[in-house]
Amino acid sequence: MTVDPAWFAGPSFNRDDYVLATYVFETERDPRRTAAHICQEQSTPQWRRVGVDEDLRGKHGAKVVSVRVLSESTQPLIPGRGHGPFRHVEAVIAHPHVNFGPRLPNLLAVLLGEGIFYTAGVSAIRLTGLWLPDAYAAAFPGPQFGVRGLRDLLAIPDRPFFIGVVKPNIGLSPPDFAALAEQAWMGGLDIAKDDEMLGDMPWSPLAERAARCGEARARAERATGERKMYVANITDEIDRLPDLHDAATRLGANALMLNSLPMGLSAARSLRARAQVPLVSHFILLAALTRVPGFGVDSHVLTTLQRLAGFDVILFPGTGERMHTTEAEVRANIRACLQPLGRILPALPVAGGSSRPADLPESLRIAGTVDFGMVPGRGVFNHPGGPAAGARSFRQAWDAVKDGVALAEKAKTAGELRQSLEAFGE
Amino acid sequence: MTVDPAWFAGPSFNRDDYVLATYVFETERDPRRTAAHICQEQSTPQWRRVGVDEDLRGKHGAKVVSVRVLSESTQPLIPGRGHGPFRHVEAVIAHPHVNFGPRLPNLLAVLLGEGIFYTAGVSAIRLTGLWLPDAYAAAFPGPQFGVRGLRDLLAIPDRPFFIGVVKPNIGLSPPDFAALAEQAWMGGLDIAKDDEMLGDMPWSPLAERAARCGEARARAERATGERKMYVANITDEIDRLPDLHDAATRLGANALMLNSLPMGLSAARSLRARAQVPLVSHFILLAALTRVPGFGVDSHVLTTLQRLAGFDVILFPGTGERMHTTEAEVRANIRACLQPLGRILPALPVAGGSSRPADLPESLRIAGTVDFGMVPGRGVFNHPGGPAAGARSFRQAWDAVKDGVALAEKAKTAGELRQSLEAFGE
Repeated sequence: MTVDPAWFAGPSFNRDDYVLATYVFETERDPRRTAAHICQEQSTPQWRRVGVDEDLRGKHGAKVVSVRVLSESTQPLIPGRGHGPFRHVEAVIAHPHVNFGPRLPNLLAVLLGEGIFYTAGVSAIRLTGLWLPDAYAAAFPGPQFGVRGLRDLLAIPDRPFFIGVVKPNIGLSPPDFAALAEQAWMGGLDIAKDDEMLGDMPWSPLAERAARCGEARARAERATGERKMYVANITDEIDRLPDLHDAATRLGANALMLNSLPMGLSAARSLRARAQVPLVSHFILLAALTRVPGFGVDSHVLTTLQRLAGFDVILFPGTGERMHTTEAEVRANIRACLQPLGRILPALPVAGGSSRPADLPESLRIAGTVDFGMVPGRGVFNHPGGPAAGARSFRQAWDAVKDGVALAEKAKTAGELRQSLEAFGE
Repeated sequence: MTVDPAWFAGPSFNRDDYVLATYVFETERDPRRTAAHICQEQSTPQWRRVGVDEDLRGKHGAKVVSVRVLSESTQPLIPGRGHGPFRHVEAVIAHPHVNFGPRLPNLLAVLLGEGIFYTAGVSAIRLTGLWLPDAYAAAFPGPQFGVRGLRDLLAIPDRPFFIGVVKPNIGLSPPDFAALAEQAWMGGLDIAKDDEMLGDMPWSPLAERAARCGEARARAERATGERKMYVANITDEIDRLPDLHDAATRLGANALMLNSLPMGLSAARSLRARAQVPLVSHFILLAALTRVPGFGVDSHVLTTLQRLAGFDVILFPGTGERMHTTEAEVRANIRACLQPLGRILPALPVAGGSSRPADLPESLRIAGTVDFGMVPGRGVFNHPGGPAAGARSFRQAWDAVKDGVALAEKAKTAGELRQSLEAFGE
C-alpha cells in the first residue's frame, strides 16, 4: 500500500515552521497510513476546492515526521474498537504553526482536537510529547518570576519550598483561616495557600481573607525574620479576575492561584499580563485527561503549556499511594518545569500528594535538585501539635536531610518530626 | 462496617441547597464507605481544626444521596488498580453550592476535580449526571436567543437547520472562502461556519473574512429571499475576544463560534454578556474527557454546562462510523439542550459527523423533533457538483422526508441528491 507522500516530511521540511507532537496510538491498520490520516484530520481534511486544481497541503498540511511500532496486543484499550491484532505506534506529527499561531486555545485545538480521537483506524490515542521551536515559544509570556525570582522574593537560596494548603479548606471564617496560616508560618512554613476548592465566597470573601492573611503574614515575618507568602485562589468567572487580582494583592496576597484547566490556559495568560505577583497553577481536571494509559495526554505536556501561559509555580500529581503516579511521570513534569525552553523562565515544580516530612528524602531524590516545592495539607494542618508543629516538622526534616542525618535519627531530638512520623508514618 | 452518617443525606437534607452529581465508580471496597470518601475528598477532607471541637460538615460537607451496585467484574478498567472483584457503583453525591457558587470554573472543580479521581478505593470513575436546583441554574445566563430566537432570526419555522463547515477549512484566502460560502447559501444552506481549526490568521484575517462573508451573505439573501447566517470562529486568547466580537459582527458575521472547552466555559459566559449575536459552541477537547467508558464524564453533562454558559447552538459527537457515538449518548445530548432547565432557554442541538443527506432521516428519528441542526462539511463542499449542489442535496432530502418520500425515490428527479447518494453512500 502506498501512502500519499504529501503527508510526510520531505527534503524541504523546516522544523522551525512546525510544532512537533508525539502521539502513541493503537491501530489495526497500516501505521504509516494511519499517521497520515491523523495529519489530514488535524489540518486539511479537504485540501482542494471542487473543480480547482490546487493543493493546500504544502503550506498548511500536517506532516508525519516519524513512525515507530512499539508493541502489539490482541485487545483494544476501549472494548469493541475492532478485532485486532492492534499495534501501538509512536508517531511524531508536525503541525504547521501558521495554521494556529502562538495562541493557547488554538494550539490546544490542534494538539487534542476531535480529529485525533476520531481518525479512522485509531482505536485509542495519547499525546505524549511536545516540541516547540524557540521562536514560536518566545511568543508566549512564560513565568514572570520563575524559580530564581521566587527564591529572591522569599530569600530562600538553597532549599525546597514548603507550601501548606490551609485546612480545613472549606468553611472557616477569614480570621480563623488566617490564624491557622499564621501558626504555620510561625512554625517555619514558607507559603500558605488556599485550597483549590476555596474561592471568593460569602462565608469567606476573598478581600477579607486576603486582608487577614496579609496582617498575619506581616506578623509572622517580623517574628521569624523570614519572608512569607500567602497564595489566594482567585479561580472564578474570568470577568472577575482583574478585580480579584487587584483586591487580593492590594490587601495582603503576594501570590495568586488559578485552577488553570477549568479556567482555561488563556485566562492564565491574561492574568499573567496584569499580575504583580507570582502565579500558581493547580492541576484540577488534569486527572480526567491523563489517568487512562494509552488515552488522552501525558501530564507533562499540560505542565509545559501551563509554563508557557505564565505560571511561576506548577502543581501536578505526585508519587505515593494517593495519586498512583509513577516516578517517571513526576520526573517528566519536573523536567517540563525546569528544562530550557527558549527564553521562557523555569517554573517551580510541585508534586501534589506529598504531605509528610517522611516524603522529603524521596522527593529530593526524584527531583535531583532543590528547585521544587512540597505541598502538604494535613501534614501541617492536621499535625497532632497543630499547624506550627506541623510546619516545624518539615523544617526539621530538611535540616536532617541537609546534614545527611536519617529522619528517624533526627526524630530522637526533634519532637515535632517524631510526632509526624508517628502520626503519618515513616 | 459502619460509615460516618455525617456523609449521608439525612432528614434535614434540602435538595435546593445542593448540586446533585451522579457518578459511576469502580471499587473493590465497600460501596457506601467509598461514596462517603468521595464526598470527603470533594468538600471537607479535614473538617475540624486541631484542638477545636467543631464539625464543618453540616453546612459544607458533600452528602451521599444514594448508592446502587450496577454490576461486578474481575478486571479493573485501568490495569494494575487492585485485585478485584470490582463493583460498579452508581452514587448520587450532593455538593453544597454554598461551597462554590454559580461559577463555572468553581463548579467544574467540584464536579471533576482531582478528589474524585484520587479517592482511596476508587479505581475508575465517571460523572454521568447533573441536576441543578432551578434557583441555582437561574444564576447562569443560558442562551440569549435559544431555538426560538434562531428560528425567528433565520425565518425557518419548522425544519432542521442546515449548517455547513466551509472546506477546505484551512488555507483559503478570505475572497475564496467567502465565494464557497456564497455558493452554498445560494444552493440552500442556512448557516455557513468556520471550521474549529480556523481562527484569526495572517493568511485569513478574521476582519477580512467576516467582511467578505458579510457581502456574500447579503447577495445570497437577496438572490434566494432567505435569511442566511455566517458563523465566525473567534477562538483565540481571551483578551482578544471583545475586539474580535466587535470586528466580526460589525463587518459581516451574524453569529460567533468558540471552541468552548479549550477556551474555558467562563470565556463563553463572558462573551455571552457582550454578544449581540447567537453563539455556537464546538466540542473540541470533549473526546479526551468522554471516550473511555467508565472514566471521565458523559458528554451530555458538558453540553448542559455549555448551555448554562450561554451557547445558542451546541455541537457534540454524532452517531455514525466516524464518531463511534451511541444513539443513547446523542439522545442524552439532545435532551441536555432542549429539556426544561429553570428559566434557561433551550439551545439548538447539533450532532457532528452527520455529513450526508442520507443521514437526515436517521437524524430526525433520533432527535424526535425538527429542533436540531445538521453540520456537514464535505457533504456540501466536496459534493461532485460543488457547494451549491451540495447544499441543494440537503434541501432536496428534507423535501423528501417532509413529504414522506424515500430518498432513493426522490433522487430519481433530484439530481444533486442523486449525486450525493452516489458519492457519499446511501
